Amino acid sequence: MTLPSSLTEFDLIERIRRRSRLREPVAIGIGDDAAVLNCASDQQLVIAQDVIVEGRHFTSDTEPELIGRKALAVNLSDLAAMAALPTAAFIGLVLPTRASAEFADRLYDGLLGLADEFEVTLAGGDTNSWDGPLMLSVTVLGTVPKGQAVTRGGATPGDWLCVTGALGGSLLSGRHLSFPPRLREAQRLRTEFHVTSMIDLSDGLSGDLRHLMATSSVGVRIDAAEIPVHLDVPNSLGFEQRLERALNDGEDFELLFTLAPEQGQRLQRSDAWNAVPVTKIGECTAERSALLWIDGQPRPLPSGGWRHPLGMSGD
Amino acid sequence: MTLPSSLTEFDLIERIRRRSRLREPVAIGIGDDAAVLNCASDQQLVIAQDVIVEGRHFTSDTEPELIGRKALAVNLSDLAAMAALPTAAFIGLVLPTRASAEFADRLYDGLLGLADEFEVTLAGGDTNSWDGPLMLSVTVLGTVPKGQAVTRGGATPGDWLCVTGALGGSLLSGRHLSFPPRLREAQRLRTEFHVTSMIDLSDGLSGDLRHLMATSSVGVRIDAAEIPVHLDVPNSLGFEQRLERALNDGEDFELLFTLAPEQGQRLQRSDAWNAVPVTKIGECTAERSALLWIDGQPRPLPSGGWRHPLGMSGD
Repeated sequence: MTLPSSLTEFDLIERIRRRSRLREPVAIGIGDDAAVLNCASDQQLVIAQDVIVEGRHFTSDTEPELIGRKALAVNLSDLAAMAALPTAAFIGLVLPTRASAEFADRLYDGLLGLADEFEVTLAGGDTNSWDGPLMLSVTVLGTVPKGQAVTRGGATPGDWLCVTGALGGSLLSGRHLSFPPRLREAQRLRTEFHVTSMIDLSDGLSGDLRHLMATSSVGVRIDAAEIPVHLDVPNSLGFEQRLERALNDGEDFELLFTLAPEQGQRLQRSDAWNAVPVTKIGECTAERSALLWIDGQPRPLPSGGWRHPLGMSGD
Repeated sequence: MTLPSSLTEFDLIERIRRRSRLREPVAIGIGDDAAVLNCASDQQLVIAQDVIVEGRHFTSDTEPELIGRKALAVNLSDLAAMAALPTAAFIGLVLPTRASAEFADRLYDGLLGLADEFEVTLAGGDTNSWDGPLMLSVTVLGTVPKGQAVTRGGATPGDWLCVTGALGGSLLSGRHLSFPPRLREAQRLRTEFHVTSMIDLSDGLSGDLRHLMATSSVGVRIDAAEIPVHLDVPNSLGFEQRLERALNDGEDFELLFTLAPEQGQRLQRSDAWNAVPVTKIGECTAERSALLWIDGQPRPLPSGGWRHPLGMSGD
């Protein structure tokens, strides 16, 4: 490992170790050749890995705390999408040689702040520096009771199609750096309602929807008027422009999920409907197409992202 | 995810999934939000993460198969150092935008070839491209029977200090790209002999030794004449130059381990001594210093890497 001259490998490992709390099931954390975790036979492990890179997921002037936070948050969102609870994180970090020790500290501040919030142990990783942009590769481990991971593949025709939160405007508003991973919401959905399939929305509803459809072998009909548009999308835009933003903007990190109508009705009547919050946006169909209903008319929802008929784009 | 124009995300994921065999304990592999693995309550999980970057761990003209292989191999070496067996790997890949689909394929050829050799399932990951150098971040999961992970911290004074294989010349010869991870050797050491501590040699014996000493709270005396110098170190060099190379070159990825003298003698008498191969290079001491004995004289072995008294360097 080679690091900025102001920071030796030993320094950095020691600093991170001091700031990282060891929690069950982590038996051995930072400081050996590998970490050791306990596992229970009534649980399964769930593992996600996401890479975030300068110039694509953040810019060179993004606050380091927000970069560290996002690197962990996108992985926690993946675990939420499986209805798993996170336990340990591993950080692969490549720092630009220009980065200072303070920069690295602030990056870990953001990361460890979110880790503490969800009781995740920073259990290991690797740090390098190079004459190139900043890159973080985070791996998160979690657990789910055996057989209860929610995949993309369990939706059946007739199931309700729902989303948490509201969609659109995440990149322009900066919400993509500070979104709350829907871990608690996913737990509630798994334990109190029988969710049949789930995915987190990273590339935009119109694109991510396709993964759920393909894996579950279903189609969908979506009621455009029901799609919750985020306050980050300007009110000054017209209905279809706002719709386009909600469908295509991406990096919402909300959950898209399906469940049987009777479960959906029960969810709708429960206080979870407001606490989560959840919106029913459509239903799964036997016909394997994606249809967006606007003013009583069905329009195809292309996999490449929906554009409204005039082809005009928002701001 | 954004990829070279010749390669869509869906293409790459499909290509990798087709070439990756799903093995126990992986229940859900590539293609959902996260992977799901089974775990047994009599086992512990062992997790390592290492990042390799262009210009430091390989060059821009290194064969892609060797880059992919090394990215996995350095992590397998970490698992070997804990006496764990690998089960699943997760690949975080950042490709230069100039990289072709053929380049990515060849990179995975090397990686999957080694994965198959050790029955490791490629279970997930994330791929990006950018206008920067090639970077791979690999996380490997493995298992070890509960309480039997070999850490850096169990050596006691009087223990023998041993290494597998031979040291030096790895970077110049290219051995650092094709070394065999000592997984089978580590299993044999754990199950047949009572190894008290272990570490893999990535930064060179003179440096890595310090981690074992610090964690175990012991010193060492090493017999310079016993250090196995690799054939990759030129025979034309003098004794002390060859010694310096074996101590400092790094990237040997051999195992440095300790065990009680009676276990060491039993190991020495067994056929494992030749099969592994193993060399006793010294002993652990109560006094917390590192001493290198040359021609009956003790010399301090500095943590920053040993230099022979004339200060001359090899080639």
